[in-house]
Amino acid sequence: MEFFDSEAAWLEHLRSQSSLPRGFQAAVGNLTFIPAERPTEKPYAMNLALIRANSPLQSFAGVFTRNRMPGAPVLVARRRMQQPQLRGVLINNRISNVCSPTGVEDIGRLSGELARLCGGTAEEYLSASTGIIGWSLPIEPMAAAMPPLVEQLGRADGLDVARAIMTTDSFPKLRAAQCGEARIVGIAKGAGMIEPNLATMLVFFLTDATLDRGRLQAMLPRIVDRTFNCISIDGDQSTSDMVLTMSSGAHPVAEDRFELCLTALAAQLAQDIVRNGEGAEHVIRVRVHGAAEPREAATLAKAVVNSPLVKTAVYGNDPNVGRVIGALGDCAGNCDIPLDPRSVTLSIGSEQVFADGVFRLDKEKENRLCSYLKQAAFDPGRRGYPQHDRTVDIDIQCGTGPAEATVYGSDLSHAYVTENADYRT
Amino acid sequence: MEFFDSEAAWLEHLRSQSSLPRGFQAAVGNLTFIPAERPTEKPYAMNLALIRANSPLQSFAGVFTRNRMPGAPVLVARRRMQQPQLRGVLINNRISNVCSPTGVEDIGRLSGELARLCGGTAEEYLSASTGIIGWSLPIEPMAAAMPPLVEQLGRADGLDVARAIMTTDSFPKLRAAQCGEARIVGIAKGAGMIEPNLATMLVFFLTDATLDRGRLQAMLPRIVDRTFNCISIDGDQSTSDMVLTMSSGAHPVAEDRFELCLTALAAQLAQDIVRNGEGAEHVIRVRVHGAAEPREAATLAKAVVNSPLVKTAVYGNDPNVGRVIGALGDCAGNCDIPLDPRSVTLSIGSEQVFADGVFRLDKEKENRLCSYLKQAAFDPGRRGYPQHDRTVDIDIQCGTGPAEATVYGSDLSHAYVTENADYRT
Repeated sequence: MEFFDSEAAWLEHLRSQSSLPRGFQAAVGNLTFIPAERPTEKPYAMNLALIRANSPLQSFAGVFTRNRMPGAPVLVARRRMQQPQLRGVLINNRISNVCSPTGVEDIGRLSGELARLCGGTAEEYLSASTGIIGWSLPIEPMAAAMPPLVEQLGRADGLDVARAIMTTDSFPKLRAAQCGEARIVGIAKGAGMIEPNLATMLVFFLTDATLDRGRLQAMLPRIVDRTFNCISIDGDQSTSDMVLTMSSGAHPVAEDRFELCLTALAAQLAQDIVRNGEGAEHVIRVRVHGAAEPREAATLAKAVVNSPLVKTAVYGNDPNVGRVIGALGDCAGNCDIPLDPRSVTLSIGSEQVFADGVFRLDKEKENRLCSYLKQAAFDPGRRGYPQHDRTVDIDIQCGTGPAEATVYGSDLSHAYVTENADYRT
Repeated sequence: MEFFDSEAAWLEHLRSQSSLPRGFQAAVGNLTFIPAERPTEKPYAMNLALIRANSPLQSFAGVFTRNRMPGAPVLVARRRMQQPQLRGVLINNRISNVCSPTGVEDIGRLSGELARLCGGTAEEYLSASTGIIGWSLPIEPMAAAMPPLVEQLGRADGLDVARAIMTTDSFPKLRAAQCGEARIVGIAKGAGMIEPNLATMLVFFLTDATLDRGRLQAMLPRIVDRTFNCISIDGDQSTSDMVLTMSSGAHPVAEDRFELCLTALAAQLAQDIVRNGEGAEHVIRVRVHGAAEPREAATLAKAVVNSPLVKTAVYGNDPNVGRVIGALGDCAGNCDIPLDPRSVTLSIGSEQVFADGVFRLDKEKENRLCSYLKQAAFDPGRRGYPQHDRTVDIDIQCGTGPAEATVYGSDLSHAYVTENADYRT
């Protein structure tokens, strides 16, 4: 992972990485609208980004939210992924197009415009949306914005797209890698409280590697499971989450090497997202090992990393280890997961704080733990870039079996409450 | 439910209700100590409360936390509830006595003191503790406080006990009722974020009704399930939760009538607890009906009431109905609960906002919803009493089956973060 010491250095680094792989062009634009659903005369701003392949793509794959109330972009993309070819994706922020009376129809209208302007059929264009759930897309201004947007194709790079799709993100997220002759660029926006289950995560991988479509479709869910699905959570998915991979097929690659490269990029973007959680001042890493089976390990780890009391204590640099044990025991009791206090060991950083059924605490250890929490904090005044890769490490040995799981989450701060008490204004 | 318009009126009402049933005496006291685990020279204050029966009790029952890391008071009480008789309970705040190296031994020492001073054996006294998890009881100052505490027996009433056992509670919680000739007094402290799974809830019912012990033990879990287990949550239980009922047996009662009375008191205390959540400015009531089975209804309702994004929106009087649909769909997807968007109906207050798979929103409805949220808010400047019984009602019809569940939770405010970022200072 690379980290930088100023927003300018971060943006310069991203710009140096942000040329698109062969065979892709991009454009960004924006518009304003008055929402139909809200009593306001204040115009809302919306960004648009268009990624288009120069010729139809035969190799692509998608992983979509498991949310039972999926947005129209997810419903449409799931269907269009079955087709023999794709040409591009249109992305908007501000409104997520979920359960709108005209949601699917609106996508049809916009894809139709794109087909008319860029070639191909409407069904060859995907739509991805992030933002407020419940409102309808401002379809007239959006349709009117298509011709000037298409005219801009080729003028935007990956960083422009990464910036256009931000919502409450405080910095753009882009990572790129070479894989032999081939190039992979990953662009992401993330996810409110860094929980993919609570806010929309959109990820787009573009590559010019030549890949078998079936193999790519098999590979992507594996990669998502090991990366994006390990940041926080209590499950996974907002109404609109999607991870798309599109390949223009210019350079042959070894498939296993490609999977390693794509996994590394996905892991980096997942870290960027977790480091950019709304108001987050610490990243918390919970590793549960010695559980009876992997699913139980993950359930326990997520219960700890999502506990509001653990999260607020970490925010306050308060090594309140009792809350970790409380959250662990509560989850085990409720989910009927075997856990014998006498076999549990808990460490924070390098300090063992619980073993053989009892807490191991003293004044000096508490002082060291306070310092440990403080050194892992972000400076909330410098939110325009990922500042460092330090985490608050909570390590739990269950003493029950061989299984383990690691999840990443963030603390719960005043800034989070402020951001979310009226996100829509 | 009774509500009052000033702290003085609330306290006056509680005082008028607070005489103990026949056969019980109470005392309160306090002490200061320097914690062994924390680098501070600042003394911490601890309250003590003692409830003692004038003669040994043959009828009592308890419901204890399901947390797999239970505190010493829970471990000891579970064992002592098996005995033929009990004489009383000692309650402390500030430290919850969980997984301390000397936890059980410390209870033995304090019970032994009580037996020596008040009669009976050590095993006839229970201990209940609430506060910080992970620290040990300051056993020397506590043991030294027993003789003056016992001397005070008879001088404290129910309200004194209710005040002594508070931690972050902003008002004392006591409710009383007559059941024929018999009296029932319920005293409670509640539960951090109003989530019994995240902070300690202690409830003590004292009665002079004559009750069969076996029947009382069968009745209490039923009552707890319908009352305290419906406030918030994702399960239930902190390391130390307990609901105790002790009967001195002076007045015969009809058992079914007693169960109704005790249920009503428990429901009132549960409402007092939810209205007193740390920093809470709204109580949220989520009713899920039309689910396939009760457990699924409860899982969905708890997912909505515990969603940080729903909670912060309600705090901001922001009718962000999309977050409710997002939380519902996420939970259904993760827990594999069948849910067809086209069958789901969502109402907030009296406004239908989602039906037939789409949102039903307009400017006027949003205005009415904002007003609805505002009228349900508490005045955060007047936290010393339950101000009203208004709730934010979220009603979800799943359209799947006949089952339903209702849960109560609270919003997520700045005051909550402040309170919990360093609860121990």
